[in-house]
Amino acid sequence: MSNIIVQKYGGSSVADPKRISRVARRIVKYRQKGCDIVVVVSALGDTTDDLLKLAHKVNRSPSEREMDMLISTGEQISTALLAMAIHKLGYEAISFTGAQVGIITDSRHTRARIIKINTGRIRKELAKKKIVIVAGFQGVDLSREITTLGRGGSDLTAVALARALRAKHCEIYTDVEGIYTADPRIVRRARKLERISYDEMLEMASLGAQVVQVRCVQVAKRFNIRVIVRSSFSDEGGTMISPALKAMEKVVVSAVTLNRNETKVTIRDVPDKPGVAAKVFKRIAEQEINVDMIVQNISRTGYTDLSFTVVKENLAKTLRTVRKASEQVGGGAVAVDKDIVRVSILGVGMKSHSGIAAGMFEALAENKINIEMISTSEISISCVIRKRLAKKAVRAIHRKFKLDKK
Amino acid sequence: MSNIIVQKYGGSSVADPKRISRVARRIVKYRQKGCDIVVVVSALGDTTDDLLKLAHKVNRSPSEREMDMLISTGEQISTALLAMAIHKLGYEAISFTGAQVGIITDSRHTRARIIKINTGRIRKELAKKKIVIVAGFQGVDLSREITTLGRGGSDLTAVALARALRAKHCEIYTDVEGIYTADPRIVRRARKLERISYDEMLEMASLGAQVVQVRCVQVAKRFNIRVIVRSSFSDEGGTMISPALKAMEKVVVSAVTLNRNETKVTIRDVPDKPGVAAKVFKRIAEQEINVDMIVQNISRTGYTDLSFTVVKENLAKTLRTVRKASEQVGGGAVAVDKDIVRVSILGVGMKSHSGIAAGMFEALAENKINIEMISTSEISISCVIRKRLAKKAVRAIHRKFKLDKK
Repeated sequence: MSNIIVQKYGGSSVADPKRISRVARRIVKYRQKGCDIVVVVSALGDTTDDLLKLAHKVNRSPSEREMDMLISTGEQISTALLAMAIHKLGYEAISFTGAQVGIITDSRHTRARIIKINTGRIRKELAKKKIVIVAGFQGVDLSREITTLGRGGSDLTAVALARALRAKHCEIYTDVEGIYTADPRIVRRARKLERISYDEMLEMASLGAQVVQVRCVQVAKRFNIRVIVRSSFSDEGGTMISPALKAMEKVVVSAVTLNRNETKVTIRDVPDKPGVAAKVFKRIAEQEINVDMIVQNISRTGYTDLSFTVVKENLAKTLRTVRKASEQVGGGAVAVDKDIVRVSILGVGMKSHSGIAAGMFEALAENKINIEMISTSEISISCVIRKRLAKKAVRAIHRKFKLDKK
Repeated sequence: MSNIIVQKYGGSSVADPKRISRVARRIVKYRQKGCDIVVVVSALGDTTDDLLKLAHKVNRSPSEREMDMLISTGEQISTALLAMAIHKLGYEAISFTGAQVGIITDSRHTRARIIKINTGRIRKELAKKKIVIVAGFQGVDLSREITTLGRGGSDLTAVALARALRAKHCEIYTDVEGIYTADPRIVRRARKLERISYDEMLEMASLGAQVVQVRCVQVAKRFNIRVIVRSSFSDEGGTMISPALKAMEKVVVSAVTLNRNETKVTIRDVPDKPGVAAKVFKRIAEQEINVDMIVQNISRTGYTDLSFTVVKENLAKTLRTVRKASEQVGGGAVAVDKDIVRVSILGVGMKSHSGIAAGMFEALAENKINIEMISTSEISISCVIRKRLAKKAVRAIHRKFKLDKK
């Protein structure tokens, strides 16, 4: 195995000159241990948002190709500043854009996918004992057009580089200490996990945890890359994302998550006939909207209510589509309920243990919390409940499964 | 001749979204006339200064290679925004970095020189009837390192592109209407020149006029490219910089300039022996400081005073050097006089007309303005006078040579 480690620092870790200098000191500390270091940086603090605002002042629907030209500058700025900060500490460092180090992507601007990475230039600089700093979130297509990778793109750059360079591991620095059994702002006794499996992390990300992006974990899983999530503000150990270990299988429930970003949509009085639901959801799918937690009530009158959840960003688009679809299938009015949240438990061991779902429902019942919708996956169970009961529910479940204890 | 025109817009012309949209409208107007348009843009307003400040907070002496990575983002931002603004008007446009359009430079970071421009990509986009927008001030060396061209680099990009594309002409848009017979803020009746020769413009730039940069005019002269200087805030015709025409030779004095950026340095009691001055100025030259207007008083006692001017930025460095040099040659104290300015007249016809210098001296004498130093070139005469008399001197000379009349 190589001696290379990839470190990725998010926007909040490099928000101002002071923080940039702190990150530089951290990097140098690793360098002193003899590691070859490749650093991936995001844009400084709010730079990307500022650029987006500027663009929208000039043109409300800017071309995606020009958006990529514009926002890719954010990461270029932070790489150069970080290199300067490392130079000041007396160490050699060199910054690169995605184009310069050959991060080749397809041509889907603002949401490009990495095709391959030419590691020649990076290896050459590492051989000269330089710390290599690469702009995250960006690449270049085969006609040398600048592309960006979409949300969480810097995480993706980091694992992709870790794979291409056969790095020992990939460290994702962020503003939290790692992955917790529950949000520490809600559950005081939430415990930081030392390890979490790829699948649990993927489920967690899809359930609304923002710490590491789904695409990053998918790549890590596919190529078996160990990813460590840790804070750039402390020296705590963080959480390692890795394959599920035998020892881990003993743990049944790993964490409770809370997703406040979904809205419940109900189509009333839908004819209870074969093919009706299919028609409705086909329409929604055509609009590239992901729906979740679909529930159909038991029909008594030949008509039924059809409910599902969507993320808030897609609500307006969903309603337009669903209203038309309901009309077509002879359904009734469309109701929206924004006052809901989804609480979930997840854990790799869950599927082979009975009584887990029952435990969750009990915890909620004991606290007089009504369950409005339920859905399950291989490694998670989710319940939709009233928004005002969200914290109470998370705490009750955390207690029920004794997640504060290892 | 091609149908291509190159337009360059400076930072103040694209300082905010409103101005960017105005520039977009101007470009589209030319497009509607059927021209193929290549636009060169500088960074938005103070972007470059803001980036420099950020860099200096991280490292007081940042590496030049990283400086280029950093500040080249400024122009990339403005090109993307301008493309978006043109799209909004319903016209096709595409932005490029210096690297993308193949502006190849040497590797002297922060002051690179253009070696060649590969026009293939630009021509391809022009053929598709797109407006091509190129980031000014930047290029890329043969190892794909980002370089910048130094002060006034965007003007240089514009003329170099005009040359490479065999453009009809090159328009430099700025915040003034063109080149004047004197600074209109000083001389109310100053007249805008319709034409000025390359040589006059070069002399003017070296005498402190900031409108067009010296390197841009040098390239324009070398390749005989017509450059039009005009305002992006009005539809006035501007000033054309072109070869000297026969008709122009009748004009003797074209303009009066005022340079407030010089300081007079005097070394007292220098031994009046051969080789002494040479020794002093060799020392100064070794520090890469340009001195100007050297004057040596007539010696009466075997000792003489040696005076010269330097630009203010170089004063501290000059004094350190000159004090040492004076000691070595057995000279006396070094005096600094910051309260001086240089007024100059310039004109291609000047060298073949007698009485021009006399006219200038008369104008000053009539206004009781003492001349402290004099220097002459092929096409200019300069006098150093007291700073408080600067405006009076400029007005007197402007009147004397009737510069308000064509």
